Amino acid sequence: MHYGIGPIGAGLVKYVLQKEGIKIVGAVDVDKNKVGKDLGELAVGKSIGVKITDDAKGLLRRAKPDIVLHSTGSYLREVKPQLFQIMDAGADLISTCEELSYPFLKHPDIAKELDRRARKKGVTILGTGVNPGFVMDTLAITATGVCQDVKKVSSFRIQDASVRRLPFQKKIGAGLTLDEFKRKVAEGTIRHVGFAESIAMIASALGWKLDQIEESVEPKIAEKPVASEHINVEAGQAAGVDQNAWGIMNGEKVITLNLQAYLGCPEPKELTIIDGNPPIELAIKGGVHGDIATSAVVVNCIPRVINAQPGLSTMKDLPVPSAWFGDSSQFIKKR
Amino acid sequence: MHYGIGPIGAGLVKYVLQKEGIKIVGAVDVDKNKVGKDLGELAVGKSIGVKITDDAKGLLRRAKPDIVLHSTGSYLREVKPQLFQIMDAGADLISTCEELSYPFLKHPDIAKELDRRARKKGVTILGTGVNPGFVMDTLAITATGVCQDVKKVSSFRIQDASVRRLPFQKKIGAGLTLDEFKRKVAEGTIRHVGFAESIAMIASALGWKLDQIEESVEPKIAEKPVASEHINVEAGQAAGVDQNAWGIMNGEKVITLNLQAYLGCPEPKELTIIDGNPPIELAIKGGVHGDIATSAVVVNCIPRVINAQPGLSTMKDLPVPSAWFGDSSQFIKKR
Repeated sequence: MHYGIGPIGAGLVKYVLQKEGIKIVGAVDVDKNKVGKDLGELAVGKSIGVKITDDAKGLLRRAKPDIVLHSTGSYLREVKPQLFQIMDAGADLISTCEELSYPFLKHPDIAKELDRRARKKGVTILGTGVNPGFVMDTLAITATGVCQDVKKVSSFRIQDASVRRLPFQKKIGAGLTLDEFKRKVAEGTIRHVGFAESIAMIASALGWKLDQIEESVEPKIAEKPVASEHINVEAGQAAGVDQNAWGIMNGEKVITLNLQAYLGCPEPKELTIIDGNPPIELAIKGGVHGDIATSAVVVNCIPRVINAQPGLSTMKDLPVPSAWFGDSSQFIKKR
Repeated sequence: MHYGIGPIGAGLVKYVLQKEGIKIVGAVDVDKNKVGKDLGELAVGKSIGVKITDDAKGLLRRAKPDIVLHSTGSYLREVKPQLFQIMDAGADLISTCEELSYPFLKHPDIAKELDRRARKKGVTILGTGVNPGFVMDTLAITATGVCQDVKKVSSFRIQDASVRRLPFQKKIGAGLTLDEFKRKVAEGTIRHVGFAESIAMIASALGWKLDQIEESVEPKIAEKPVASEHINVEAGQAAGVDQNAWGIMNGEKVITLNLQAYLGCPEPKELTIIDGNPPIELAIKGGVHGDIATSAVVVNCIPRVINAQPGLSTMKDLPVPSAWFGDSSQFIKKR
């Protein structure tokens, strides 16, 4: 069952429709413009005979989904009632809610409640996506697997926003004056959510006890005019965002995450650097396409979440991520 | 407990001695030159009060290890009695035996026996190392986690053998004439063991049913004289090995592994290429140091193996690999 049919949710539907052995039993969205419409029409322009409803509770009871793909918001406090509603219906749950990817730091009480309820109901709950969920945390953690010593972990995500959706380009502040950019940062509307979660997950995997996590959000200022299909940026305006976060231990920045997403980025890439023994410098040339990868990570995790022990899980607790092809049933463990 | 104190086994001891919360309760080796010697003297040049014995059975009974790190051979048929001996003593087990990393393809019967015995004894058994175990299989599988489609998986390991141990340089045929090289390949002494296992593990993760696996071992011929600390190679001789393996599905090479290890390699690296959606080109600059990384992967997996369900496990079944620091007990799940 799909819960939340925004751009990310629609992307999930699109990928699920390509997979064998998954039947979509229902879809929920509160948007009045979507309710009553066919889910397939909305996601891939082709009817699939599943009508979108705003009655989540009724649908959960009628459809009895094995697993719900949830994509309605970034903040745990806001989506919490929906998560409980899904768990109470006895369904496993994967959410793109960024704060759910590692909720133990910022929301330890909610994390405990979620874990307790999930165990009680015998379901597994996971927050994931491309980031948080993969490139700046799971991949960095995996890279440390070959290290005997780790002094520092750094992850850089350098993205060319020109090729992304208009909402993404707006979200990173492309085309704003520096004053407008500053105001939007203060309002909290320009900001990747998930850095604190990624840092806390890396620290937990390594057994590092951090003193604190610091974050900064700055504009990436255009040196010359630059444009996407949708937005023109003048020199001196913001071409996008340059966001940093640091995990600090004993007064030292031991984890550094840096996200640069802007129009006209010449050399997009993902870069993970482990200052350790051996040292590791791992790069993904061109970077990982965010929208495609988020759908991929979520749907690829379905068998792992169904197989997992009940409770609140994170990417570092599950078996290594992997794409899978053919009928889903071959990846589901028999009980 | 350490079982097998060759170069790899000694490396494991060296890293274990750096970790908190692990007590070495014994060591086994059949080499008469090692029996009776202090394990620490042999591994790090410093006594640790653990004498090496050749009586594995007696030691297992007396020392009652929680987990055994096993490193005596590459071939499953040869090490099988040792693995059963360890399991029968009720100990979890991590082995660097290459064929154990994914034994289901070449030794399905032994794999079944091992799994059955491990479950019966309530222990977990894992084969791992840097390769097979990480760079050409686990990392490639992990990279597909962000993909919606995968057409081909390729992994290249380009190594400069000049910086490695002499036995390694000999193993790859550095300094041999092409005739000598050919003879050693025919004898089976120049050959990385583990390609078939890595390919089978990748295919299994993806749900690909391969028709067959093909392998080739060729010399990397020196174009000009090249030397390491230990070996001089003349132009026209083998500077090392160029080994390929392919996983073939519907007549097409869908998985390609290529290992080049030779003296004078100008640009060592690990390279994983996923021909998919999105495409992924993941490189580790300079490569991963094999000896350090093998010890790291094995010892870093200890908590995961102790936490795992009983049975024969593989890297793709366990939670994502990770280094860990501080006392080991914080990573062990309470039952």
